[in-house]
Amino acid sequence: MSSICLSMEGGAAASTPAALPYYVAFSQLLGLTLVAMTGAWLGLYRGGIAWESDLQFNAHPLCMVIGLVFLQGDALLVYRVFRNEAKRTTKVLHGLLHVFALVIALVGLVAVFGYHRRKGYADLYSLHSWCGILVFVLYFVQWLVGFSFFLFPGAPFSLRSRYRPQHVFFGATIFLLSVGTALLGLKEALLFNLGDKYSAFEPEGVLANVLGLLLACFGGAVLYILTRADWKRPSQAEEQALSMDFKTLTEGDSPGSQ
Amino acid sequence: MSSICLSMEGGAAASTPAALPYYVAFSQLLGLTLVAMTGAWLGLYRGGIAWESDLQFNAHPLCMVIGLVFLQGDALLVYRVFRNEAKRTTKVLHGLLHVFALVIALVGLVAVFGYHRRKGYADLYSLHSWCGILVFVLYFVQWLVGFSFFLFPGAPFSLRSRYRPQHVFFGATIFLLSVGTALLGLKEALLFNLGDKYSAFEPEGVLANVLGLLLACFGGAVLYILTRADWKRPSQAEEQALSMDFKTLTEGDSPGSQ
Repeated sequence: MSSICLSMEGGAAASTPAALPYYVAFSQLLGLTLVAMTGAWLGLYRGGIAWESDLQFNAHPLCMVIGLVFLQGDALLVYRVFRNEAKRTTKVLHGLLHVFALVIALVGLVAVFGYHRRKGYADLYSLHSWCGILVFVLYFVQWLVGFSFFLFPGAPFSLRSRYRPQHVFFGATIFLLSVGTALLGLKEALLFNLGDKYSAFEPEGVLANVLGLLLACFGGAVLYILTRADWKRPSQAEEQALSMDFKTLTEGDSPGSQ
Repeated sequence: MSSICLSMEGGAAASTPAALPYYVAFSQLLGLTLVAMTGAWLGLYRGGIAWESDLQFNAHPLCMVIGLVFLQGDALLVYRVFRNEAKRTTKVLHGLLHVFALVIALVGLVAVFGYHRRKGYADLYSLHSWCGILVFVLYFVQWLVGFSFFLFPGAPFSLRSRYRPQHVFFGATIFLLSVGTALLGLKEALLFNLGDKYSAFEPEGVLANVLGLLLACFGGAVLYILTRADWKRPSQAEEQALSMDFKTLTEGDSPGSQ
């Protein structure tokens, strides 16, 4: 398998579209602001985070914003940012970021179920929770299918190239659904906690509304970078040669091919 | 201008991807179910709709689902569905559907502001309302800019083709933000109306959760049809000839060109 991991040293000339780094920097600024602002909201108005108390709930929004919004978004951008690295390296980074996101989201899930049990609240009755479970299951399935097609050696190349556009579409959709679910959760927390005070423009309500708008902007920024046609990762000579090697390799002796 | 409106009779052979009609039919089924279910929710659980009473509020969700979700989504699909009609006809239909959507959404906005005034409620304090105003303003601006670039004769062709990808991206983004805003509004209505009963799996709560999932599915279905690369509208020989004609025409004597 060592022939797969070609180094890019002395490879094709690197080319990055002029505006791309600025858009990526802007998206990262938005993403970090999101995480900081979620922390500030929980710290200033919700009493901070602690696992062994009622504050366990607060781990839920923080984990979800870090995992299913920021890290998931960044995992989608990996192919645009590391456009001149070897494809395999980029692919592994993409898969790893999604694993981190998934694990952090799992901690966030455990936090909210633990909090509900502690307080004797019902589980999974709200639209937020339905969307959340849907997102988590789809995200996990997408990761498994993505892994078996693209990282695990054995999938025939024809299957890979037929699955790739579906993987990209569902990846973007799951990300957007994650952002939407976060907005629903934020809204739920505001109505539960602020009640009538929400309509009096309490500072917490305004802060959380701004956080909601930033969540939507981050989703928009990632989507823009991802979909802009002239920013797509170029198909490199190295990869094409590799693909041919790999095609022969996998279609020749892989147990998965027919 | 009559040379622009070429008929397709005897034109290039029509070709429609085999699966496209099924996906479009599915999206329409989802869209109509959405509208019917919103009506059923308002009729069965919210007392129906009447303009001159507290039931004025109920015009808001119905108008928004019809205008900013169903019609807006369908306006985006026009170029996929009428792929073999003359481009100009399709363009006018696209613009008109967006006008209908905008007018219906305006009625929905008037309804909620009227209801708030009647009840003495504060305006524009919630995340739903902030997102809603943002969507409405962006949608109106997008329509105006789209009209002046693509329907009003005069924009140079080079400008049109540079603006087109931005128009498509922002169109899809505004549509998705509309769906997200509808979800936030639905959630708000549920928490205001059901309160603690929401967690007891009341029929209204379950119905509204299903409505929320269908909203997200409709958004996903429209996005899928819109972004699938091999379903994009083909550039027709007719259009290319037209473009050249029009290019000469507009760059020659249009007041807008430089």
